Amino acid sequence: MTAMAREMAEQPEVIGTLLGRREEFAARLREVARAPLAGVLLIARGSSDNAAIYGRYVLEAALRRPVALAAPSLWTRYGLEEDLRGYLAVGVSQSGKTPEITDTLERVRAAGATAVAVTNDAGSPLAAIADATIDLGAGPEEAVPATKTVTAQLAAFAILADALGEAPWPDAAWDAVPRAQAEVLADDAAAEAAGAAIARSSSHVQLGRGFLFAVALEGALKVAETTGLASQGFSVADFLHGPVAIARPGTSAVAYAEPGPVAQDVREAAARAREGGAELIAVGEEAGPADLRVAMPAGVPEALAPLVHVVRAQQLALHATLALGRDPDRPQGLTKVTPTT
Amino acid sequence: MTAMAREMAEQPEVIGTLLGRREEFAARLREVARAPLAGVLLIARGSSDNAAIYGRYVLEAALRRPVALAAPSLWTRYGLEEDLRGYLAVGVSQSGKTPEITDTLERVRAAGATAVAVTNDAGSPLAAIADATIDLGAGPEEAVPATKTVTAQLAAFAILADALGEAPWPDAAWDAVPRAQAEVLADDAAAEAAGAAIARSSSHVQLGRGFLFAVALEGALKVAETTGLASQGFSVADFLHGPVAIARPGTSAVAYAEPGPVAQDVREAAARAREGGAELIAVGEEAGPADLRVAMPAGVPEALAPLVHVVRAQQLALHATLALGRDPDRPQGLTKVTPTT
Repeated sequence: MTAMAREMAEQPEVIGTLLGRREEFAARLREVARAPLAGVLLIARGSSDNAAIYGRYVLEAALRRPVALAAPSLWTRYGLEEDLRGYLAVGVSQSGKTPEITDTLERVRAAGATAVAVTNDAGSPLAAIADATIDLGAGPEEAVPATKTVTAQLAAFAILADALGEAPWPDAAWDAVPRAQAEVLADDAAAEAAGAAIARSSSHVQLGRGFLFAVALEGALKVAETTGLASQGFSVADFLHGPVAIARPGTSAVAYAEPGPVAQDVREAAARAREGGAELIAVGEEAGPADLRVAMPAGVPEALAPLVHVVRAQQLALHATLALGRDPDRPQGLTKVTPTT
Repeated sequence: MTAMAREMAEQPEVIGTLLGRREEFAARLREVARAPLAGVLLIARGSSDNAAIYGRYVLEAALRRPVALAAPSLWTRYGLEEDLRGYLAVGVSQSGKTPEITDTLERVRAAGATAVAVTNDAGSPLAAIADATIDLGAGPEEAVPATKTVTAQLAAFAILADALGEAPWPDAAWDAVPRAQAEVLADDAAAEAAGAAIARSSSHVQLGRGFLFAVALEGALKVAETTGLASQGFSVADFLHGPVAIARPGTSAVAYAEPGPVAQDVREAAARAREGGAELIAVGEEAGPADLRVAMPAGVPEALAPLVHVVRAQQLALHATLALGRDPDRPQGLTKVTPTT
């Protein structure tokens, strides 16, 4: 078994444990961040950036305040000075050591923001800077493609949203998440067939909208990292504004949907990709007619479903990589910590 | 001559005229938007979204307040209710008729934000909703790939930044922009050679950072739209966090840089892409060693340079399309107004 597959398999336990600590984190978060917030600023890169896109939706839905993704270069390169009193800033880094993220969090905190660290190392520089830390507790990650730490970051944003606002799901939904993740992991025959379809394609797109948009971004990044295939994730609205032209024979496309107000939009975009000649892989029953379908467990509300869909996205990338005869643990040209400053 | 080439050639005049009206727009903007703003919210899709990324940098640099890109689905699909008093919201739509943009601007205005429309039709629904409008005055655009209207949107954000904050350029810099655009248009031999290199590649990436990040996004979108090639724009920091794996033989890469605090970052990422085997096209002298170089005029400050670099980006896409023997005016699978709601 590859390290990537092993770490994927740890997710129900890692996420179950993390979600189980939500009241402990919430108490600390409520101590340091006072409502009403002026706004929220998220600081992240790479896979963490995709988690932050989910954070962007779930925090804005729960807090009803605008959420911005920081442009780190404005802080670290251009030396911007702002007054951020009343703002909540969340820095996300698995290692807690990405200099660009720690440097930006330090600067926005100095500008007056309350700083929260989301990291897998509670003893890291990022945690040392922050007023409160959500310690992911995911354990060491050996495979270069991040899996359990990304899912844990998604969980951290769900915890933050629930702690500081009104999260759009009932309390009973928390327990459904690790259960649904385990169900996805136990059932991977269809994902294997879909991975083979991705492996034989010459370019790849992933589509989502709303809460599941982040999964399309993360899934496409995972495919790009592990297979080296040109691969891109889109919000379906942006996809129809131009990039739909790249959906043609030889392209594989993945569409994520759950029952909810954006399902029809995803179905329409998926149908357009298919009309263009792309081979369409539908994740869930809601994404419309498809060449291949990968089932999803029922009973997880749309706003929490990204924590489950992302496990499917990882499976697709893993199987595409194995179908190509490559080692998913050590993709060409990548290392674990990228020291951008 | 194609409509795309003709409309590109109009840019020095369109932008010169638009920038010349900046005091008129500024007076109206200062009437409706009072400092200090709580924050800024930008609403856009497709090429307009890339203009908004430039807006994100230039407005935050000038206003020193966080700038967020709206997630329209939260407003139009999930029915979010927020209190946006004190916020400035900018809706960007060439036609002023994209239902998703007009609908979102209307909802955020109802939530208390001051609404500004950036549109090419002052009589459009978007302008009717707004408290103030920057009328691009770019004239009709016939080619499907947007060129002069995108550059005009970039100019509108520069005008907004200067009107409501302290723009990071001297007043004399305004006049340098249309002059430099004309210089780029008059000198297109190197862009033609670079376009041919893009045409013979099997995948394509564009790289930038800071103010020029938006040009990499827009340039990559233009190549995707006109050639159908798998094409993606990256901030160099994100690129090094994973997608660098797609830079290999058969990939063409474009890097944009100007003298300034991020030039070294762009040089490093461009060198990594080249090490991976990508054929590197450097735009400007600052992007480091390259396989092909396309010169840029001197004398435009970095924060305004995107208005000039984007003309180069258009040239590269145009020449790549012509080298493939395709019609840039009518790319496969695209229409001018995309009615996402």
